[in-house]
Amino acid sequence: MEEKEGGQETIALGDAKPELVHACDEITNKNIPLHAIEQRITGIDTEDKLRKAVEIRRALLGVVDIPWASDMHYSSVYGRCCENVIGYVPLPVGAVTGAIIDGKEFTIPMATTEGALVASTQRGFKAIMKAGGTGVQTYVHADGMTRAPIVHFEELSDAIALKSWIAMQENFALIESTFNATSSYAKLAKIDATICGTDLFLRFKATTGDAMGMNMLSKGCEQVLITLKEKFPKMKIISLSGNYCTDKKAAALNWIDGRGKSVVALATIPASVVETVLHVDVADLVDASIKKNFKGSALAGAMGGFNAQAANIVSAIFIATGQDPAQAVVSSSCLTEMEKLPNGSLKICCTMPSLEVGTIGGGTHLRPQQAALEMMGIAGPTPQHLSYGENARSLAKIICATVLAAELSLMASLIQGTLTEAHLALNRSKA
Amino acid sequence: MEEKEGGQETIALGDAKPELVHACDEITNKNIPLHAIEQRITGIDTEDKLRKAVEIRRALLGVVDIPWASDMHYSSVYGRCCENVIGYVPLPVGAVTGAIIDGKEFTIPMATTEGALVASTQRGFKAIMKAGGTGVQTYVHADGMTRAPIVHFEELSDAIALKSWIAMQENFALIESTFNATSSYAKLAKIDATICGTDLFLRFKATTGDAMGMNMLSKGCEQVLITLKEKFPKMKIISLSGNYCTDKKAAALNWIDGRGKSVVALATIPASVVETVLHVDVADLVDASIKKNFKGSALAGAMGGFNAQAANIVSAIFIATGQDPAQAVVSSSCLTEMEKLPNGSLKICCTMPSLEVGTIGGGTHLRPQQAALEMMGIAGPTPQHLSYGENARSLAKIICATVLAAELSLMASLIQGTLTEAHLALNRSKA
Amino acid sequence: MEEKEGGQETIALGDAKPELVHACDEITNKNIPLHAIEQRITGIDTEDKLRKAVEIRRALLGVVDIPWASDMHYSSVYGRCCENVIGYVPLPVGAVTGAIIDGKEFTIPMATTEGALVASTQRGFKAIMKAGGTGVQTYVHADGMTRAPIVHFEELSDAIALKSWIAMQENFALIESTFNATSSYAKLAKIDATICGTDLFLRFKATTGDAMGMNMLSKGCEQVLITLKEKFPKMKIISLSGNYCTDKKAAALNWIDGRGKSVVALATIPASVVETVLHVDVADLVDASIKKNFKGSALAGAMGGFNAQAANIVSAIFIATGQDPAQAVVSSSCLTEMEKLPNGSLKICCTMPSLEVGTIGGGTHLRPQQAALEMMGIAGPTPQHLSYGENARSLAKIICATVLAAELSLMASLIQGTLTEAHLALNRSKA
Amino acid sequence: MEEKEGGQETIALGDAKPELVHACDEITNKNIPLHAIEQRITGIDTEDKLRKAVEIRRALLGVVDIPWASDMHYSSVYGRCCENVIGYVPLPVGAVTGAIIDGKEFTIPMATTEGALVASTQRGFKAIMKAGGTGVQTYVHADGMTRAPIVHFEELSDAIALKSWIAMQENFALIESTFNATSSYAKLAKIDATICGTDLFLRFKATTGDAMGMNMLSKGCEQVLITLKEKFPKMKIISLSGNYCTDKKAAALNWIDGRGKSVVALATIPASVVETVLHVDVADLVDASIKKNFKGSALAGAMGGFNAQAANIVSAIFIATGQDPAQAVVSSSCLTEMEKLPNGSLKICCTMPSLEVGTIGGGTHLRPQQAALEMMGIAGPTPQHLSYGENARSLAKIICATVLAAELSLMASLIQGTLTEAHLALNRSKA
Repeated sequence: MEEKEGGQETIALGDAKPELVHACDEITNKNIPLHAIEQRITGIDTEDKLRKAVEIRRALLGVVDIPWASDMHYSSVYGRCCENVIGYVPLPVGAVTGAIIDGKEFTIPMATTEGALVASTQRGFKAIMKAGGTGVQTYVHADGMTRAPIVHFEELSDAIALKSWIAMQENFALIESTFNATSSYAKLAKIDATICGTDLFLRFKATTGDAMGMNMLSKGCEQVLITLKEKFPKMKIISLSGNYCTDKKAAALNWIDGRGKSVVALATIPASVVETVLHVDVADLVDASIKKNFKGSALAGAMGGFNAQAANIVSAIFIATGQDPAQAVVSSSCLTEMEKLPNGSLKICCTMPSLEVGTIGGGTHLRPQQAALEMMGIAGPTPQHLSYGENARSLAKIICATVLAAELSLMASLIQGTLTEAHLALNRSKA
Repeated sequence: MEEKEGGQETIALGDAKPELVHACDEITNKNIPLHAIEQRITGIDTEDKLRKAVEIRRALLGVVDIPWASDMHYSSVYGRCCENVIGYVPLPVGAVTGAIIDGKEFTIPMATTEGALVASTQRGFKAIMKAGGTGVQTYVHADGMTRAPIVHFEELSDAIALKSWIAMQENFALIESTFNATSSYAKLAKIDATICGTDLFLRFKATTGDAMGMNMLSKGCEQVLITLKEKFPKMKIISLSGNYCTDKKAAALNWIDGRGKSVVALATIPASVVETVLHVDVADLVDASIKKNFKGSALAGAMGGFNAQAANIVSAIFIATGQDPAQAVVSSSCLTEMEKLPNGSLKICCTMPSLEVGTIGGGTHLRPQQAALEMMGIAGPTPQHLSYGENARSLAKIICATVLAAELSLMASLIQGTLTEAHLALNRSKA
Repeated sequence: MEEKEGGQETIALGDAKPELVHACDEITNKNIPLHAIEQRITGIDTEDKLRKAVEIRRALLGVVDIPWASDMHYSSVYGRCCENVIGYVPLPVGAVTGAIIDGKEFTIPMATTEGALVASTQRGFKAIMKAGGTGVQTYVHADGMTRAPIVHFEELSDAIALKSWIAMQENFALIESTFNATSSYAKLAKIDATICGTDLFLRFKATTGDAMGMNMLSKGCEQVLITLKEKFPKMKIISLSGNYCTDKKAAALNWIDGRGKSVVALATIPASVVETVLHVDVADLVDASIKKNFKGSALAGAMGGFNAQAANIVSAIFIATGQDPAQAVVSSSCLTEMEKLPNGSLKICCTMPSLEVGTIGGGTHLRPQQAALEMMGIAGPTPQHLSYGENARSLAKIICATVLAAELSLMASLIQGTLTEAHLALNRSKA
Repeated sequence: MEEKEGGQETIALGDAKPELVHACDEITNKNIPLHAIEQRITGIDTEDKLRKAVEIRRALLGVVDIPWASDMHYSSVYGRCCENVIGYVPLPVGAVTGAIIDGKEFTIPMATTEGALVASTQRGFKAIMKAGGTGVQTYVHADGMTRAPIVHFEELSDAIALKSWIAMQENFALIESTFNATSSYAKLAKIDATICGTDLFLRFKATTGDAMGMNMLSKGCEQVLITLKEKFPKMKIISLSGNYCTDKKAAALNWIDGRGKSVVALATIPASVVETVLHVDVADLVDASIKKNFKGSALAGAMGGFNAQAANIVSAIFIATGQDPAQAVVSSSCLTEMEKLPNGSLKICCTMPSLEVGTIGGGTHLRPQQAALEMMGIAGPTPQHLSYGENARSLAKIICATVLAAELSLMASLIQGTLTEAHLALNRSKA
């Protein structure tokens, strides 16, 4: 039988101190697929079983130098965030200290292998600290995760009918209650129904508490589609995601309408601090920022990329805190602007409309990643006395503020022409 | 003195078995900055010293649950790929096995916390294997890293003069030799000089052997700028990077002209395999792919994002193999197309113009990441009997082929409507 | 006096049969600026005076071969749609007949100098007519003109305060009544307040009856800004238009959110008609449409340009009917899709989200342009028994349907490879 | 027979003074299609015959108020630039005088129905004139029309083979000679072969003398395709145009690589002139320009639209001079930048990479349009003592310089808040 994937016999590892060779042989002999090893081991505790499965899989595949033994709690991984596990890859975490944001001081963990990134960001926050006051000001001005199924009709009039139906307040209320019933946290905010030919792209937007929210949205959308299908039986569901969400693809839609948290960060730095800490002139910074971040990006046909290096910071904090690193594609959209104020100070703003972050779900439940969130006092669900989602919004603010610090520092480095030297000194292969 | 950053005294840890508390006290008392701890410890071996510095820094910052002790060789990190190190964050690695690409079988490591991703990709490769033949066909049709400094002139005629000068073959030859002299690997291929007002954006493109190449490009550009400045003294260098490179920002330029490796991958799957392994109909797959990957993305104003989930695979392999995860922003650009062939088979192609990858430099020298490359037989520099850069190009091919497998599987899942359930079952927070 | 622009004396042309030479001399002697000639002529009727001014201006500038005398009613032009008038340029108008749209038959005027355009469009409608039924089906699913002023604050909190204030229902109601009071037709639908740094871009969207509506929007916005300034005295108005409108610039915003009329057109053509009238196979048409209109455009980084030649039709009907030809930039956004139905027929849809059209205002009051609208029964304001804006919406539908016919025909020609020959035969310079 | 389109009998209008009613009857009786009337009239001179055909067609369609009799030479139209002609639509032409560009003074014709446009542009040039010197400086830094056929292969290796073949110098030379042999003017400059799946998009770029060049490109491409097909018999030609050209669709490709003429224009205006002529402050102009032309456009997801109103000027001069008005879509791409120089003066630059213009071909042979070109001394082919294409390049320069003047004036108006009032006063419907 072609679809056969191994018998249902189990590997008796608990009976005695198991031999790895024996286990591997059994798997081979019984034709057990690699991903099913966990399900076939019996006689030992769960965590031991999962660990043993990883060990067997490594032996079968000949994996040696990828670590696996010390730092992973496989019960947190199995069935939740990875399959066919063979170990883990450790990424160095650097700490940026003394980050003053909205009057509070943070230590910010960044997971990176790019030499100079942590040091450069640190320098940005040093300038901000020396500027005094409450540091970087931030504001979350919009919040909502999105998902956009595609539905199809044969007749244009039917597609129009659904679009019109959704636009009516009482019908939206029905959809809203259906959607919200699928989760304790998700609250539907709006549906944008975009018609194209006889297809409709229904972009749902909802707040999702402290979760990044993709799964909540998927669950809610699915339930709504069931409801809609009952009312519009000619509707054909093409796909739960129609790329009009838009997840993990650079798209103008998120840049314009936002996705996740939309944040603005602002700092004002006296000219003297710019000169003594960053060793550049305010006017030169402003000029270079316009030429690079506006003009260069405009010429390159950038979509949301009007900044120097937002993606570096987004990725580094995302990985440290258990976010989805692939969402850096959309989350790193940022417009950085610099201006010389009448008093000679530098005003720098970073506007990031689509930070897709959460402090629960995804990789945030892994202990190290959780600890990284704890360093900033924002792990897990928001404490009861605050409104839902406060932790996630705080994470978005911290990221946006850190981007600002890093933009400040890198732009200064570029002007000084020190970037290459610093990079080469720090990053070059020594072998 | 405000700028004082600690005296030059060192912490004598080698004299006796050092006490962590003592060391922390010394650092506090001597006002040693956090990033300088490594430089102040004396009397012990380098690796021990670096490890001790991390331990002290953790104690000072109160870091407990981020791991640090077991799996990191700090000599590979210090001064190269992270500063202010406090430990590391481990990401689970899953293995996709039986990946047939250009007739060879690979086991592909993916670092991810997104449940179902590895399993789904595995399913895609299962269908490809069952289709028989040489599996996914791939081709690298272009190769070149880019960097684009901005230079400014007061007069339009001077900007034009430089542009015209560069366009002359003998001058390009001079630039080429200057550029190539800065590295054993980098070979300058072209310069696109884009004029805007009285500024020039000079986009250098070069092959860079097995390195991703940003540092090589920066070094080469810097030397060329010095040469140009001598010939065009009125030229003002604004920034070594003018966002016309474009690094880590979604931009049409890379999508059109390519950056890093430009790869195409193709597979043909008989209808029977599509039905038995993916449980969908070829016609439905094609229809959903057009509606989602072309139409949905077109409506969303996507730039390069004409695919279902390329970023997931790019991020997962990037992190496992020591690539720069922030470069997933550009590297995950992908156009996925499906077609029903006259014989009923499915033809699927993924075109990825900008995979910024390397097998040396960056995070690839960290032992676990190197081991991940070794699993695929492509670690480090290309063996002597092959042409430089072959390993890096192989990595690009493997990524593109894996994207194809994942696209195939996810599109099928979306049609079946099983995505949400799989996600929810695998990924939801259990607490 | 440097700013002197001629004295206030008038040219006495009415006293006697005026000599052109005499008038020119007077203008030269009195240093009357060219644009002021109309104001200085006395003693004759308005239309004669305006015509005389054109004649004098032509004599002064030596204009001979640009026509002026026969077909222009200068009272319709002066002070309304052109200054410093020296005549007019005639564009040939071709008629497309037998255009069946929503069951009605239209003759559609197209002003063009592109050989084969009218003939090709005619062929498209011929296929549609032979398909029988009600011809092209159309639907206007959204309607609203936009304008987006920029306002600036020094403090982030103030910008946020205004954004929050506008979002409250009672405040929107106040803005709405202020806005709507500036016109009998404009009805404010929404305001999107996009924050970037400490600036706000306030995108107003309103229906505007049968007018294209830019002037209505400007007038309404201006009044609202006055009201806001009273409530938010720290608000600084930067510009009445902040390019976030977006007028006459290709931008994702209009593509996503719409501007003017958003229209879908659809036609179904039996395979036999495709073969006998268009001389191609349905499958080939579908294949070429995907490759060209989706893939080629996606690769080129198109924004809204997922079609073959929508701009040709938009421009031709715009010019014939007195629309603003520069608005073809945004109005020609179109996604054309073709599909082979189970019964073998071709289904073709054109989706155009941003047709900026009107049947009053702009150039529509000029007699020939008005006559072009009359040919289609949609000139001027909508008759009383219909709802305001019906004529403008009909114009949008006709344009979208004509685009569809032209797409159909051109795609067929491209496949046949006959395009070039037709063009060359029709369009080449004979001299 | 279904395809019958009227018999071959002719309408004998030349025998006697023809009656219109009689002619119409004959056409109806003989079932002669509207577009064929010209071919069936006999016995009179060509121009009379063509005019009579227009008259008959108008009678048949009931066209009255669209002019036709006075200002059109139908021999220039028939078989060249319009079919089914029923008359013409006249657009008012205003003259902008005293336009100083590269030291020469021009009178520039603009065909428009947008009130205030000519007056505003005139004001811009007034400021430029008062600034003294050589006025607007311009430079054409690239020149080349493009066309991109799609070709398809079943096998990836075959697509790669063609791409590689074209990249070899000797093969390009062969293609070049084939291409250039199709025209006396077209000179092939490069081919960009972009691979996507197993399709190739071959973007040809060539200089085309004084013609805009689309037809030349089509002709040359077609001949090259024939040659390629011989060498690569498995190649399937999908379409002569693959939207990778890109013609009349907003696309990043043209913005980045250019199409037609790529022009930069620059002017420097002393602060005193800005204040006295434009009534604004230089700093305010610069600030508003950054906020509107960079930031607003960036936020709106603009592609090439980093300007205030380039499309208005492009359209107006295009229509006046017989260019293709639909090409304003791509041709109006423009980046406008303003800067305050150390001496307080305003520096303004407009960069336009894709002006698709010609002084021969298209509508330029119509007498009025030709006369408009003559006003600027650039009608027809370039005089023998100059290099081919000089007239077309001059037209591009004049357009870019006029855009600059109009940008300057409009930005000043927006700051003054006078835009709306001027528009309303000039443009509103008086009826």
